[in-house]
Amino acid sequence: MSVPAPKIVIAPDSFKGSLSAEAVAAAVTAGLRRVWPDARCIAVPMADGGEGTLDACLSAGGERRRMTIAGASGAPLAAELGIVERDGRRVAIVEIAQAVGITEPVGMSISVAARTTRGVGELMRHALDLGLRDFLVGLGGSSTNDGGAGLLMGLGARFLDHDGREVHPSPGSLSRLARIALDDFDPRIAECRITLMSDVNNPLAGPRGATAIFGPQKGVTPDEHPAFDAAIAHFAVLANQAFGVDAAERPGAGAAGGLGYALQLLGGEFRSGAEVVADLLGLDAALSGADWAITGEGRTDAQTLLGKTPFVVARRALQQHVPVTLLSGAVDRAALPALGKIYSGCFSLVFGPTTLERAIADAPELLADSAEQLARLRTAGALPEASGGA
Amino acid sequence: MSVPAPKIVIAPDSFKGSLSAEAVAAAVTAGLRRVWPDARCIAVPMADGGEGTLDACLSAGGERRRMTIAGASGAPLAAELGIVERDGRRVAIVEIAQAVGITEPVGMSISVAARTTRGVGELMRHALDLGLRDFLVGLGGSSTNDGGAGLLMGLGARFLDHDGREVHPSPGSLSRLARIALDDFDPRIAECRITLMSDVNNPLAGPRGATAIFGPQKGVTPDEHPAFDAAIAHFAVLANQAFGVDAAERPGAGAAGGLGYALQLLGGEFRSGAEVVADLLGLDAALSGADWAITGEGRTDAQTLLGKTPFVVARRALQQHVPVTLLSGAVDRAALPALGKIYSGCFSLVFGPTTLERAIADAPELLADSAEQLARLRTAGALPEASGGA
Repeated sequence: MSVPAPKIVIAPDSFKGSLSAEAVAAAVTAGLRRVWPDARCIAVPMADGGEGTLDACLSAGGERRRMTIAGASGAPLAAELGIVERDGRRVAIVEIAQAVGITEPVGMSISVAARTTRGVGELMRHALDLGLRDFLVGLGGSSTNDGGAGLLMGLGARFLDHDGREVHPSPGSLSRLARIALDDFDPRIAECRITLMSDVNNPLAGPRGATAIFGPQKGVTPDEHPAFDAAIAHFAVLANQAFGVDAAERPGAGAAGGLGYALQLLGGEFRSGAEVVADLLGLDAALSGADWAITGEGRTDAQTLLGKTPFVVARRALQQHVPVTLLSGAVDRAALPALGKIYSGCFSLVFGPTTLERAIADAPELLADSAEQLARLRTAGALPEASGGA
Repeated sequence: MSVPAPKIVIAPDSFKGSLSAEAVAAAVTAGLRRVWPDARCIAVPMADGGEGTLDACLSAGGERRRMTIAGASGAPLAAELGIVERDGRRVAIVEIAQAVGITEPVGMSISVAARTTRGVGELMRHALDLGLRDFLVGLGGSSTNDGGAGLLMGLGARFLDHDGREVHPSPGSLSRLARIALDDFDPRIAECRITLMSDVNNPLAGPRGATAIFGPQKGVTPDEHPAFDAAIAHFAVLANQAFGVDAAERPGAGAAGGLGYALQLLGGEFRSGAEVVADLLGLDAALSGADWAITGEGRTDAQTLLGKTPFVVARRALQQHVPVTLLSGAVDRAALPALGKIYSGCFSLVFGPTTLERAIADAPELLADSAEQLARLRTAGALPEASGGA
């Protein structure tokens, strides 16, 4: 009698600084196939709204448009817009890391005081021109701290000082802002449904705001901090008035240097990036009838259980009674007791003491080898979940 | 209906420089019990004839006698003799690392030129006085390079130069040897059955001999090497004559700085240390009806498959169709294709990039956590060994 080939869903996040989610899934699949050449391995490369979100969303098909926008520094930058079909509608995928990303060398070469998100607005306008009205915006990985002022300008808002001169939409200039004119604001935005992908729930300003929490990693110095925070709060007072919405205190307003604020002015609603990507890629359908799910990320710790990608994958797998194993670059052992309630084993890809650099360099081979070992252990047969139970 | 508690055999070697085999087995058991509180965990701490062999052999019961002998330096040293019962006979366990061990600070404080194995002979004589005639001698971990001359002296042989003066049984002195007198040699040795535990199969002298291969790690300098090798070869010519046996070329004669030679003069026969320990501890009986076996060592590489402890455990487990998983300090990935033919998964105890020092310091907790993860994966259910097969 023929033994059915196992069905295995491989749904990792990217390993930040090392491998894309697609590359991780490919490596794991290669390892599994050494044990089961005929296994039905379904790769569902995941993302959480940060860098890699566009690639993940397009992994099951879709369209990729390359366009020139203003980068965070104002210099022209080639950025991609994704277009996928969902429920019969075409949906625009905007990964803000593409436009104003922290790994974008040009954007980072000028001071954060002058960086702006205008290019994100331009990217959205291109999408509007293409007839798109549904947006999925991945908010992770920005280099900017402009409260989203640039975005609004990119969509047609005008920023003026007391003398009617234009104000640059960046934290170094917004304290001079006296008025926001929306006469030329793109009216098509009102027709849009905007979903924001981020796990950040900080407000725009104040001690838990964008500048305080995320400013330092973008180069905001302690000296600049009070002025930037005040400038953005000042901008928000005027923007709230202009749009007739008070969004500055909303959870997530502080995401992506305040883009989370500006996009909420436009009706944007937050959802977990991993949940959105899982829906878009049909993770639940992939998990249906699967024998095993494997997920992972660069580093897993207690934060993972607060809704990061491997947690979302695990929750959905367990809903369908599919055992799920974690294979990450590293696992914080302190989190194992909590992780153990969810995962059928948590593993690192390394095979002994080694350096982070080495693990990153060898990640594809390490992942394949590790996945193979996990598969071999699963061929050893089932042992009961708890002894002496019912 | 009650689910039967799984029966699991934990049979690791020691993790050299970190944990005894007993401590490894205890840590692994602790981790497994987090998943299966009622599991029948049978610890069979293994050894290969080196350091830790005495403890492993006594782990299932037996007697431990502490006695004072001459250490490698000649200074008094407390050493242990083990006594276990096997097939109704009392068997002496001699771990030469106890008497002339490389980790013994007094022995190592004098030059290897003067170190001698006389204490091993004394230890055996004590055993003879206790009525013991069966010996299991673990040959690993010696600091000596005396060809086993000291052992023979400890058992009553006299070493004389051309003027009838006594010659010290050490590589720095043996070139002066002119005659070996056996008049006072202990006659009870003739009644003995001596089993030598070692995987070394080098001859006594020459390019593959004890001095050439193992001398450097004992402190033999390139300058000393030719003289030591010649002195031991010279000693062997006289010892072969005295005992009427030619043992210098036999496999294993070069074990333990030549103790393997001297003990073969006395009728000693080599067996794999791990096989002897496995028999002594009843590994096969422990494996009978087991659901799983776990073995491991400090570091696993292709050498492991040449008969080291984890290989012996795996072979015996597979004979009884018990799946066996490897959990070591580190695994050489280059060996994985070969290891994969035997083990249901090969794993390291680390959870991400780390230093060797850190892994050693945290080894008990890392082992428990790792074993727990392996157990969790085994609760995920069996997947067929190969897809599409018969």
